[in-house]
Amino acid sequence: MRSALPKVLHRIGHLPMVGHVLKTLGSAGIDRLAVVVGPNHGAVRAAVGELAPHASIHMQEQRLGTAHAVLAARPELEHATDDVLVVYGDTPFVTPEAIAHLRAGLAEGASVVVAGFRPESPKGYGRLVMEGERLLAIREEKDASEAERQITLCNAGMMAFRGDVALAILDAIGSDNAQKEFYLTDAVEVANDRGLRVDVAEIAADEVFGINDRVQLAGAEQLFQAQRRRAAMVEGATLIAPETVFFAHDTVLGRDVTIEPNVVFGPGVTVADNVVIRAFSHIEGAQVASGATVGPFARLRPGAEIGEGAHIGNFVEIKAATVETGAKVNHLTYIGDARVGAKSNIGAGTVTCNYDGVNKFRTDIGANAFIGSNSSLVAPIAIGDGAYVASGSVLTEDVEADALAFGRARQVAKPGRAAVLREAQKDRRKPT
Amino acid sequence: MRSALPKVLHRIGHLPMVGHVLKTLGSAGIDRLAVVVGPNHGAVRAAVGELAPHASIHMQEQRLGTAHAVLAARPELEHATDDVLVVYGDTPFVTPEAIAHLRAGLAEGASVVVAGFRPESPKGYGRLVMEGERLLAIREEKDASEAERQITLCNAGMMAFRGDVALAILDAIGSDNAQKEFYLTDAVEVANDRGLRVDVAEIAADEVFGINDRVQLAGAEQLFQAQRRRAAMVEGATLIAPETVFFAHDTVLGRDVTIEPNVVFGPGVTVADNVVIRAFSHIEGAQVASGATVGPFARLRPGAEIGEGAHIGNFVEIKAATVETGAKVNHLTYIGDARVGAKSNIGAGTVTCNYDGVNKFRTDIGANAFIGSNSSLVAPIAIGDGAYVASGSVLTEDVEADALAFGRARQVAKPGRAAVLREAQKDRRKPT
Amino acid sequence: MRSALPKVLHRIGHLPMVGHVLKTLGSAGIDRLAVVVGPNHGAVRAAVGELAPHASIHMQEQRLGTAHAVLAARPELEHATDDVLVVYGDTPFVTPEAIAHLRAGLAEGASVVVAGFRPESPKGYGRLVMEGERLLAIREEKDASEAERQITLCNAGMMAFRGDVALAILDAIGSDNAQKEFYLTDAVEVANDRGLRVDVAEIAADEVFGINDRVQLAGAEQLFQAQRRRAAMVEGATLIAPETVFFAHDTVLGRDVTIEPNVVFGPGVTVADNVVIRAFSHIEGAQVASGATVGPFARLRPGAEIGEGAHIGNFVEIKAATVETGAKVNHLTYIGDARVGAKSNIGAGTVTCNYDGVNKFRTDIGANAFIGSNSSLVAPIAIGDGAYVASGSVLTEDVEADALAFGRARQVAKPGRAAVLREAQKDRRKPT
Repeated sequence: MRSALPKVLHRIGHLPMVGHVLKTLGSAGIDRLAVVVGPNHGAVRAAVGELAPHASIHMQEQRLGTAHAVLAARPELEHATDDVLVVYGDTPFVTPEAIAHLRAGLAEGASVVVAGFRPESPKGYGRLVMEGERLLAIREEKDASEAERQITLCNAGMMAFRGDVALAILDAIGSDNAQKEFYLTDAVEVANDRGLRVDVAEIAADEVFGINDRVQLAGAEQLFQAQRRRAAMVEGATLIAPETVFFAHDTVLGRDVTIEPNVVFGPGVTVADNVVIRAFSHIEGAQVASGATVGPFARLRPGAEIGEGAHIGNFVEIKAATVETGAKVNHLTYIGDARVGAKSNIGAGTVTCNYDGVNKFRTDIGANAFIGSNSSLVAPIAIGDGAYVASGSVLTEDVEADALAFGRARQVAKPGRAAVLREAQKDRRKPT
Repeated sequence: MRSALPKVLHRIGHLPMVGHVLKTLGSAGIDRLAVVVGPNHGAVRAAVGELAPHASIHMQEQRLGTAHAVLAARPELEHATDDVLVVYGDTPFVTPEAIAHLRAGLAEGASVVVAGFRPESPKGYGRLVMEGERLLAIREEKDASEAERQITLCNAGMMAFRGDVALAILDAIGSDNAQKEFYLTDAVEVANDRGLRVDVAEIAADEVFGINDRVQLAGAEQLFQAQRRRAAMVEGATLIAPETVFFAHDTVLGRDVTIEPNVVFGPGVTVADNVVIRAFSHIEGAQVASGATVGPFARLRPGAEIGEGAHIGNFVEIKAATVETGAKVNHLTYIGDARVGAKSNIGAGTVTCNYDGVNKFRTDIGANAFIGSNSSLVAPIAIGDGAYVASGSVLTEDVEADALAFGRARQVAKPGRAAVLREAQKDRRKPT
Repeated sequence: MRSALPKVLHRIGHLPMVGHVLKTLGSAGIDRLAVVVGPNHGAVRAAVGELAPHASIHMQEQRLGTAHAVLAARPELEHATDDVLVVYGDTPFVTPEAIAHLRAGLAEGASVVVAGFRPESPKGYGRLVMEGERLLAIREEKDASEAERQITLCNAGMMAFRGDVALAILDAIGSDNAQKEFYLTDAVEVANDRGLRVDVAEIAADEVFGINDRVQLAGAEQLFQAQRRRAAMVEGATLIAPETVFFAHDTVLGRDVTIEPNVVFGPGVTVADNVVIRAFSHIEGAQVASGATVGPFARLRPGAEIGEGAHIGNFVEIKAATVETGAKVNHLTYIGDARVGAKSNIGAGTVTCNYDGVNKFRTDIGANAFIGSNSSLVAPIAIGDGAYVASGSVLTEDVEADALAFGRARQVAKPGRAAVLREAQKDRRKPT
């Protein structure tokens, strides 16, 4: 990947690719997880600890092949009674259905089941050499005969073992090859030699999408987005231009939601029914209640809660703030660490001054309040229900309910002075 | 569609799909329109009333098949002398040329003309069973013989009838089928039985694009946009990245217009020659005169009129306002219900405070005026020609021509106090 | 092109297409350039003068064919000793490798080398009639026999001549054809007639991409962007959605740079390692140092220099300004003609008022300063290290280091007056 970040921590839909695999295993009802990490992969260990706290983590100290990697989880294998599945952290598109398919093979009597798929071109993949329904061997391309190269069913990598034979098979894999490594694919021949049945479970090519560089990472993101966009539409959202909408792995959309072109969702977003997300909006960690309108050019940051029928307009940023039912924040505004009460109207250019350089403070605006344009509300501050703040005010003290508050200078005019000023400006040396 | 909105009111290029069909019929010179709506489709009735006020609207009380639907317009059919066309509200890409093609068949002696097309795969479509140039029958796939399934010419749905026989043919259609419904496709056999000539008019597959779910709706939007983008380029606009520009059905572009990536047009926009629309702009209901520059990150809302050579810059919103020749509104500004006179300069952060919580008022800025940054102009207010407003002013009263106006507090400095303040802040409990 | 702008000045990746060709020739080590322009193409002359100051420019007064065009550069041809290459200003994708390939043919003994390519469909292209490795003739489609039309190797246009025979060959080309024009393609037969060897150098079809209308121009931009996106990823940048990122011809990206969806680069941008460019950012003429974060919704204009670890947030515009190490400009701010010192924090809604209507002035903010929200800094002005500016201040005078500065009015509240005001508003006639 030409990256300091370990491969499986690169993100797809804002979730590390290993997280996709862990999530899928959860959906498939797999509750016992053993994760093998390479040396110096503390970041992976930390991420897995967060994504799947119940997983055991095992270190593969030396990189001596895939079977060797699986054996790093020996303590888990020793007491395995249930099925043992081997999946990869860099194939994020495997589905719960594929996992069920592999396990079904074991349930039907196989001791080992190998996932197979049919790529557009089999070139470079290991071929699955079958005899009827049984898998005899996985043949790497370089070792394949001309006839074997015609085989279109290829090794997808994933495998399932009957728990009571898994360790014995893995331990029997040797390293008698050019690289002196222990290959998991040799499990097929080991099992066959012992008279154990080896089956193939064919899965879709998309599920085998592996990622080895950033071009493939971008391809994976595109595949993920295509799946999510389609699902959003099937579930009842209107995406005017689905190819321009970017979802996170956990985005939740209600019914009859309309999403205009160019909308980006970060993680942690829930959008209720009948919401309109207008063009060029960026939304992360936010809740949007039914009937609200967001954008264009709106940014909702974590902790934004937009109430029913509320309006968030252009060049508006909302952070850690609740905008209650029917309130309007329509133009060029920053609302942070705040509450905007129901039906209140926030004028253009308003700023909640939540930060004093050291601390952050809250702004509380009641219901039915009117905040005039270009006002600065210096937190901590409370503006009461029904209060009215004149445009251009700087407020540092609470305003009681129904009060009118000002904080601005008186207007002064000097007739005819603009022309004089302009002459003076022309004489001034231009310093930049 | 999994939607509370009737299907034909879902929009493509900001026009309900039924509107596309009505617009095409208008372009084809069809001046008598009868629209059949289903029960509980008041919204469709209202939309059609607005889109085509001269159309008669007919209610199909029960859904008993396509022929039954057409017969809901019986009063129109009874006195039909001219051609009768049957088109569908959910096939928005039919062209005036296709309609002319169908009518040409009638002019050449046919009594019925059926639109045919050749889909990529005929699977699922009714096949057109021909004998030479004559259409014998439309065979649904389930009723087709193996030979008939090889037919690639399929039923596009649209039909034309000679006016003097239309009603008789439609009335003769029976419901002797599994569903007990009256199918328009049976008109072919009825006409043949009567010795009337039935022709086929072949049209392009794109024109038959029907919409039954939101995935197809998005596909229709994409097709519409592709057609409009190509037309814009052919007519002389430069689209740097056409795939990122979204037009409305009525967008008008002049010559040598340049449109950068990521521009969204809502309805009602006219852009004159030599305009540059920069990236990330959102424009609806606006006029942009020649030589103007808009964006990046500009929003023009309905009623925005941008004069010749004017500049609208980033994070600027213009609503119901005229920005006259050569004026500049370049940064972080809201101009609403206003006029900005020729060659005036509006500083960054300026807000026209047009709303007092109840009413909206106008701001009138003359020519050659200078509005300092972060100013608030509280409407109703007039700033005279050549006036100069100092930065940070809040103005509530008119400023006469060539006057200099202030409305801001005097600067006060407290040497060394910043450090004291910071110490105090550190002691303050962090409340958020 | 339906444009007032000469074709070769239309831009791809912000560089005129002729500039791409000139840049490629430079990369290929060609140091003597002769550019032939048509009559009334002063703009091309000017652009070439800027893009390649060392090129000689020659006017083709009448348009009498391609050979006639090349002969407009006769003074250069007369003294040619080294290879003579003929390339076209409207085929911007030719590579240095293709040029090397042509020259290799000359080095191997050919007197003329013609670039050939295999298009998806040869229709419309001149076919290369070969005899073994030798090129006998270029046959235009209209003159081709049925057998010749089967040839898939076509004329790519580009040619190379041995310098000592180039002029003689070109002068021998006649105009004995329907159009009475002098065709460069006839050089093949002239050379063969003289017993000189003519070879073909096959190049990739992409390199021959020619541009004759705006649809093709958009296609060229797309091809350019696809190449640049791929290169950026291969070199170690993460592009979440590469299809939404637009590079300029000279964009430079460091390692482990992350670029979110919808980012547009203008010319002159350098981004260092570990930078995150968030969604909806627009960057031109800017330097971004390592570890900085930009966006979403940020605009960096020419002269913006963003320091290590600095943060530029949403709805922020930076122009001709340095934001030093670790400084933060996070919301709704305009910083122009300025310096923001290391670790300073600029509050939301801050504006550097750099323009007085005639001149532009500088704002200098020291390190560790705090500028409260909605402040206006009227330049020329200097804010010292560690100074603290209260929110909503308008400052016109320098603030010394560690001082606390205010410039705002005192807050006034009128209890209960909001309700009275609202009643009065209701009685007021609504004027807009």
